[in-house]
Amino acid sequence: MLFRSVLRFVSDKLGIPFNSHVIRREEWSYERHEIQNCAVLDIDCISVPSITPGQVSAACGNAAFRYVIAAIEAGLAGEVAAVSTAPLNKEAMQAAGHKYPGHTEIFAERMSAARSCMMLTSPELTCSFVTVHVGLCDVPGLLSVRRVLDVIELTTDAMRRIRNREPKIVVCGLNPHAGENGLFGQREEERFIIPAIEAARAQGMNLEGPLPPDTAFLAWRRQQTDAFVCMYHDQGHIPLKALAFDSAINTTLGLPVIRTSVDHGTAFDIAWQGKANPNSLFEAVLLAAKMSAP
Amino acid sequence: MLFRSVLRFVSDKLGIPFNSHVIRREEWSYERHEIQNCAVLDIDCISVPSITPGQVSAACGNAAFRYVIAAIEAGLAGEVAAVSTAPLNKEAMQAAGHKYPGHTEIFAERMSAARSCMMLTSPELTCSFVTVHVGLCDVPGLLSVRRVLDVIELTTDAMRRIRNREPKIVVCGLNPHAGENGLFGQREEERFIIPAIEAARAQGMNLEGPLPPDTAFLAWRRQQTDAFVCMYHDQGHIPLKALAFDSAINTTLGLPVIRTSVDHGTAFDIAWQGKANPNSLFEAVLLAAKMSAP
Repeated sequence: MLFRSVLRFVSDKLGIPFNSHVIRREEWSYERHEIQNCAVLDIDCISVPSITPGQVSAACGNAAFRYVIAAIEAGLAGEVAAVSTAPLNKEAMQAAGHKYPGHTEIFAERMSAARSCMMLTSPELTCSFVTVHVGLCDVPGLLSVRRVLDVIELTTDAMRRIRNREPKIVVCGLNPHAGENGLFGQREEERFIIPAIEAARAQGMNLEGPLPPDTAFLAWRRQQTDAFVCMYHDQGHIPLKALAFDSAINTTLGLPVIRTSVDHGTAFDIAWQGKANPNSLFEAVLLAAKMSAP
Repeated sequence: MLFRSVLRFVSDKLGIPFNSHVIRREEWSYERHEIQNCAVLDIDCISVPSITPGQVSAACGNAAFRYVIAAIEAGLAGEVAAVSTAPLNKEAMQAAGHKYPGHTEIFAERMSAARSCMMLTSPELTCSFVTVHVGLCDVPGLLSVRRVLDVIELTTDAMRRIRNREPKIVVCGLNPHAGENGLFGQREEERFIIPAIEAARAQGMNLEGPLPPDTAFLAWRRQQTDAFVCMYHDQGHIPLKALAFDSAINTTLGLPVIRTSVDHGTAFDIAWQGKANPNSLFEAVLLAAKMSAP
């Protein structure tokens, strides 16, 4: 039970009581409802001597990866109703030989999702993404009617569950002024975004767009909009972080199991100091519970 | 004095007193300080019968263009210390055969600016732009060390005048996470942005960057930053409009004459109704006065 030893070591060091129930894989039976409260699954993958707090290491990267895989397997087996993930250090994970850009791609691959997308949700605004971790130069080439429509459908479906009603969705354009009738860009709005919006409307969805990206996020429109479909990472991340830093929750839509995540990094600079703010993780768990409610 | 007839017609229609001093070009002598208060220069370019309020027309587009040219000529002749422009309808101007994307390009061309850039300033944040009215796909190809450095220098110089001290400038990256050490994009940060920052620092400027675009605009950083150098239109326009819609003033930096402008459109839907909010124009005039103070 080596992972328990790590948790005990840190809690002793910080003077935090450690009361969690720690179990091994073979002791765990979700169906028998043995676990009533918070329980820590120990998959025996890391020990105290292999950790230097705040330093990137392959050993820790490997342990993080193995925990993600354990969560995915538990989800696929129906042993858990949803998964919420803490941050993961990509550099450490890649040093351990696991070549993924992040959690989302591990989940998408291992869960064989035919289509998936990232959604960030906060009290101020919710954004989903047609493209995410790619260079700005690669964004226009990754757009297609099918991909934009997939993200619109996934977003509408998720917001229906979260709001318990038909949501209002805004779809952003790609170019300044949404292309201004073809004046800027390669008519990506006309070629990809408008046909996807029309197809979604034909299914009865409540959509507005493609809007000029800069006026999409005005205060009055945010109040009337349940979610924004964004074409690229910073189109949605800039307003989210400017308006609601640290309160956004990351969700991967399109997976067979609900998955939410914090929207912050590993903060190695304050590792093992008892200073980390757990609010985003609490919010992630609460959202997962809401989305997986029957 | 046909333009005066238009102003009188509208003020009568709306019941607003019209007390402005209206003069013709040949009556005007800035040097003799004859004009103490607000004066309207009548360049005899439009009359009441040629106007249908709220409708795009070549006649109005031509009048708008001629006023812009008159302001540029007055600036170049040293007759005015600064120019503040109201919005201009691009479609009308282009219908009149003047093929410019907007004011900024007319000023840059007629004033033969070797380098210039747009800057938007508001109480919440100030952004200047390396590229503006181009498609997203064209942005990476328009970056160069020289262009990024030009915008950094123009921005620093303008903020020195506005703040009366050495300003703190943040330079945004182009790609998500500012490229994450070359993981996303074509290393535009390393090829163009970092060398420009280093050259500016060598001149003694106080710069931070290239920052991940999404964390550049966090609330605490906005408070510590005088201006943000943005690589493309929506990188800066999204946070500006989300945080400070209608209070941003547009300035063209690099011209031989100070030029500021409102940051809103012509609002033809409320033309001649007395409903337009003049605050942005007031702010533009005040900023121009501040920037042109000796």
